[in-house]
Amino acid sequence: MNNSGNNSSRCRIVVDAMGGDFAPANAVLGAIEAFNEKKNFDLFLVGKEKRISEVLSSNNLSFQKDFIVNADEVIEMGDSPAATLKTKPNSSIVIGAQFVRDKKADAFVSAGNTGAMMAASTLIIGRIPGLGRPTIGAEMPSVNGVCYLYDVGASKDSKPIHVFEYAVMGTIFAKEMGSVSNPKVGVLSMGEEEGKGNEVTEAAGKLLKDSKLNFIGNVEGRDILAGDVDVVVCDGYVGNIILKFGESVPKLLKHLLTKTAERSFIDKLLIGLSKGVLKKSLKSLDYQEYGGVPLLGVNGISIIGHGSSSVKAMKNMVLRANEMHQKQLVQKMTKAISEYSVKN
Amino acid sequence: MNNSGNNSSRCRIVVDAMGGDFAPANAVLGAIEAFNEKKNFDLFLVGKEKRISEVLSSNNLSFQKDFIVNADEVIEMGDSPAATLKTKPNSSIVIGAQFVRDKKADAFVSAGNTGAMMAASTLIIGRIPGLGRPTIGAEMPSVNGVCYLYDVGASKDSKPIHVFEYAVMGTIFAKEMGSVSNPKVGVLSMGEEEGKGNEVTEAAGKLLKDSKLNFIGNVEGRDILAGDVDVVVCDGYVGNIILKFGESVPKLLKHLLTKTAERSFIDKLLIGLSKGVLKKSLKSLDYQEYGGVPLLGVNGISIIGHGSSSVKAMKNMVLRANEMHQKQLVQKMTKAISEYSVKN
Repeated sequence: MNNSGNNSSRCRIVVDAMGGDFAPANAVLGAIEAFNEKKNFDLFLVGKEKRISEVLSSNNLSFQKDFIVNADEVIEMGDSPAATLKTKPNSSIVIGAQFVRDKKADAFVSAGNTGAMMAASTLIIGRIPGLGRPTIGAEMPSVNGVCYLYDVGASKDSKPIHVFEYAVMGTIFAKEMGSVSNPKVGVLSMGEEEGKGNEVTEAAGKLLKDSKLNFIGNVEGRDILAGDVDVVVCDGYVGNIILKFGESVPKLLKHLLTKTAERSFIDKLLIGLSKGVLKKSLKSLDYQEYGGVPLLGVNGISIIGHGSSSVKAMKNMVLRANEMHQKQLVQKMTKAISEYSVKN
Repeated sequence: MNNSGNNSSRCRIVVDAMGGDFAPANAVLGAIEAFNEKKNFDLFLVGKEKRISEVLSSNNLSFQKDFIVNADEVIEMGDSPAATLKTKPNSSIVIGAQFVRDKKADAFVSAGNTGAMMAASTLIIGRIPGLGRPTIGAEMPSVNGVCYLYDVGASKDSKPIHVFEYAVMGTIFAKEMGSVSNPKVGVLSMGEEEGKGNEVTEAAGKLLKDSKLNFIGNVEGRDILAGDVDVVVCDGYVGNIILKFGESVPKLLKHLLTKTAERSFIDKLLIGLSKGVLKKSLKSLDYQEYGGVPLLGVNGISIIGHGSSSVKAMKNMVLRANEMHQKQLVQKMTKAISEYSVKN
């Protein structure tokens, strides 16, 4: 669905209508809400045409048929990520990724099978030239606003060059999407002094030191939330564990408060009174609020959403893809990686 | 200072009087408080005799001269850990560790230079036979009480056999000191399925699967606080980052609450009213409350305290050493490691 002829600055976004626990409804409704709000991008819906049309008609929405891309198959949440790309060549995830590979679209958004989406992005759309590994980041709340943490699970057993690449891409993301003017980059370690990282982060630190990035050296676990560093890089295994640990904190807090309330009536009263304000304050700890996350390092925009994505989350993912395109993130990362490209 | 003749079940504890930011006062006062409370162990104070005597006399405390072990040198907080053992052979840390090595004492407690204390424990007291690496654990608050996390920084770049040994020692610690009847052990990973760990944890998982430990498989970052696993093992680098990340959470919460309070008067009032109850609930997130931590895997009891240890923290460390001796932790770990010993 578009309002004008295609031009290179107008973003073309494919949304996987079949992705997520509430597909196709949430995906279709979220995508169209985003389109109606901005109207400055082209929207394609990929999936079973009949199912998409049902959602459109039952919600009294009009959508140009030309912008519905039929895909007969659906990759289910339980399907094995890599294998399913071959066994389901007509799935919405495969066809959506091919759309970006074939330059018919600039961005692909899906709340479907995360592993399949990562595999399709990396194998079908491909990596930006010279890059070792794509990365997924997390926006951790910090005393200073946000701390961008890479990698949080796109891969594991990263090599030093990969951790270095995360820093290059994370710097561009923080600058462009987070409006941080000269992002401070730190590598996650057991202490601030050199020699306090593990083998991988120590070697990555050496590469970072020799780069033009604003590298501040080793940072510790406590620095992520403390607000003195903008981009923190580490192996995907470590980042993933921290992200999930952080996500579990509100649940522990709730438990601790309940236990305190059980011990005293006054405390129970006070906790009851302050429940709302606590919830409000803790909202930024709920990482799910952010909706989907971009897989950086792909030669096109790829945004992966939670299976449980709401209409609002889907809408935010589409708007984010549009913003990433307008800010030319893929081009900027491609240029940066080509400059920093290290043979390994 | 003792009340009866030595026998093998009566613990002999050496306390580093010169260790910590408030030495010798806090170390001496804490140790004597512990002794006066229990009187079922022998207490030695190691350090500059004159300085120790000053603290004793200015606090009107009597202490048998025979139990003061003079040490002319002091390892400072800034001293390089390994080198200083050689350059300061008459330091309280070296002499204290030698006391345990020479079987004149069962336990050594210090709030001094952490690195020097780790080096002295490993190199002077030595490891239990057959063990690869000692470990330091953290008692993380969980919905179920406590989750024991190993290793949190005794070493880094652990090999699979080391992670396995952490599980063996952690199981004994949780059982004996935490009264957990059959501790559930998990290895930290990116997902619950096999294959979701990194190279080290996957290989450690295979060793654990073949052991008699109550191994429940891979656990994720969110499982540490969730209460379904008692002992979580990982590389020291990862554990250290999680521990410090967790320690920084209360500060972020305070910041988030302050920000909420700034936006609304009612919220400010509610937050003000509930400050005390919040503080009470969050107390278990303050890991410093626990005082010192034992270095497990040493062929004797070694307890390492924070530099800022209070009198109460010092007292708790001494009581803990005594309890570990009574429960024969070193003997039990030695037996378990000899049974599980894997040639590598």
